Amino acid sequence: MAESFPMNGGDGTYSYTNNSQFQKQGSDLAKGMIKEAITEKLDIEISGTFQIVDFGCSVGPNTFFAMENMIEAVKNKCILQGLDSKNMEFQVSFNDHTENDFNTLFASLPLDRQYHAAGVPGSFYRRLFPRASINLAYSSYALQWLSKMPDEVSDRKSMAWNEGKIHYNGSSREVVDAYADQFEKDMGVFISARAEEILSGGLMILIMPGIPESAAHLPYSAGVLFNFLESSLMDLAIEGIIDKAEIDAFNLPIYFPTDEEMRKVIEKNGCFSIEMIEFANPKSPVNGSLNADSWIMHLRAGMDGIFTKYFGYDVTEKMFNKTLSKSEEISHFLQSGHFNSTQLFVVLNRK
Amino acid sequence: MAESFPMNGGDGTYSYTNNSQFQKQGSDLAKGMIKEAITEKLDIEISGTFQIVDFGCSVGPNTFFAMENMIEAVKNKCILQGLDSKNMEFQVSFNDHTENDFNTLFASLPLDRQYHAAGVPGSFYRRLFPRASINLAYSSYALQWLSKMPDEVSDRKSMAWNEGKIHYNGSSREVVDAYADQFEKDMGVFISARAEEILSGGLMILIMPGIPESAAHLPYSAGVLFNFLESSLMDLAIEGIIDKAEIDAFNLPIYFPTDEEMRKVIEKNGCFSIEMIEFANPKSPVNGSLNADSWIMHLRAGMDGIFTKYFGYDVTEKMFNKTLSKSEEISHFLQSGHFNSTQLFVVLNRK
Repeated sequence: MAESFPMNGGDGTYSYTNNSQFQKQGSDLAKGMIKEAITEKLDIEISGTFQIVDFGCSVGPNTFFAMENMIEAVKNKCILQGLDSKNMEFQVSFNDHTENDFNTLFASLPLDRQYHAAGVPGSFYRRLFPRASINLAYSSYALQWLSKMPDEVSDRKSMAWNEGKIHYNGSSREVVDAYADQFEKDMGVFISARAEEILSGGLMILIMPGIPESAAHLPYSAGVLFNFLESSLMDLAIEGIIDKAEIDAFNLPIYFPTDEEMRKVIEKNGCFSIEMIEFANPKSPVNGSLNADSWIMHLRAGMDGIFTKYFGYDVTEKMFNKTLSKSEEISHFLQSGHFNSTQLFVVLNRK
Repeated sequence: MAESFPMNGGDGTYSYTNNSQFQKQGSDLAKGMIKEAITEKLDIEISGTFQIVDFGCSVGPNTFFAMENMIEAVKNKCILQGLDSKNMEFQVSFNDHTENDFNTLFASLPLDRQYHAAGVPGSFYRRLFPRASINLAYSSYALQWLSKMPDEVSDRKSMAWNEGKIHYNGSSREVVDAYADQFEKDMGVFISARAEEILSGGLMILIMPGIPESAAHLPYSAGVLFNFLESSLMDLAIEGIIDKAEIDAFNLPIYFPTDEEMRKVIEKNGCFSIEMIEFANPKSPVNGSLNADSWIMHLRAGMDGIFTKYFGYDVTEKMFNKTLSKSEEISHFLQSGHFNSTQLFVVLNRK
């Protein structure tokens, strides 16, 4: 069973609801690209119900903006095709892990929504919907989460043991390969589950952090930022607050694929044609809009869950506080431009 | 917008999860009847996906038993019709108010379920699903909840003012009529929304507390039991703990229709043929299995929400405690047989 580390629920200080502007900026950038993809690549037949699914929707509000945007694009496409969309009904299904805070999601559904809404709990690394029932599948900033940490990297006897580290940035080739293998496996399962669920002619739009193949050898943004958390944890180990063995045993199940890695999985599956696969700059925090402190808040909204699960609340609190004290160093890094071109945008058409 | 008073969430002492055996007994009784209705009245075409919806599902586990039961019945029906159900996929959608505890519902979904699960938040007194998308609609012990309390009964200037009372049992003709009108309106909306959502040939199975037309003039079980809560509240008013005006202003939005009232609404709508409309004994608490104390716990699991919303936690706590002190009187009433024949069972076929 896939592990789950939901975004922070509710609407408090560290909630995802109040700390997801960075993800929103990514989606805003994608807005135009999504519209274009739908206009150019989606083949619409007025068949009554048009189902859109957000895989890994979290608790909003970003998912609501994205869904409205896509519905508008589909309606415009209908007009372009000379179709009457008046009789078309939209069904929007919001998927995330069972542990996601669906109560908060449901409570914040827009009252003026122009669609029927449903929540679908469960890991997207398995079948979730009936065969051929989805017209448009979407996933934004969710597929970087692997189904689990690769087994080898926390195995002391393995060549891929990732001692003293919590991620693969700066680790040995074996560690990087173990992560890459896990990504290939997981993404293969995702693509093949969606291939069964998406109607022929339907589209899948995937947005996630990634690395251009050409830059795969460079230190990359999020990886370096995880190193700051890593070093905060190691500080706590030195202070005797946690055991270093706990850090050795823990690895973030997060992977940033290259375009080539993504292409390989899709082609191996064979059910989708690749309409677009490219990188964009997420609206860059480099431009001064996101400082180190608010970057840490964002990270916390998304990652409190996993750190709390493994290290407990106290250690997690201390780790983020220690990281806050490094905000000058982090600011320096945020200015360095490593955030450029890290948004992978993929459009697939179900053959 | 319809008001909502969700069942108690979570899995604590007063939770619906741990206090819904009475509803379960009602469903158990209905199990055979449901199987029969599906076998005799449902017209199955193997079309890929078969969608079942539970309207007003609450938080489980009763809804899970009911869904499994219906899926088994549909599969058996396939065998009888010589159809191969192997390629049939079941989609089960769990509907309840947005305020229902969907997190608990999702967390307790059976791991070995043979269906795709979705939660659909929102009042069932409006459209919730795309046109012609449901094969089998089900609702158990939910439709007795009106969309709101009738306006007149809490209006001091109305002939239907229900002074010092919280329900229509033992009230004036005007009060009873105001409740009956609200039921007719609400059930009309429910039936017409479902008429759009259910496929031609699809079935709707409704189970709810009701009163046989022939016994409508007699004091009836639940109504009398509400009178115990009412008198506990009045005790609190006498003790000065609440203002009597608060009791005057409050009326439970719950109605127990007769079979004739139900028939009238369905025939007025005209989209459904009535395949069955009859009364059964819910497996009776009279038989000693449910004593007064556990009856009060059951009532609390279902009604804490509405009382807490209007009177606050403290008054609600005191009211239930006072009612517990009347358990001898209640036991006496529970033995009296008034619980007989109060389960209305309706099977409709979408023309």
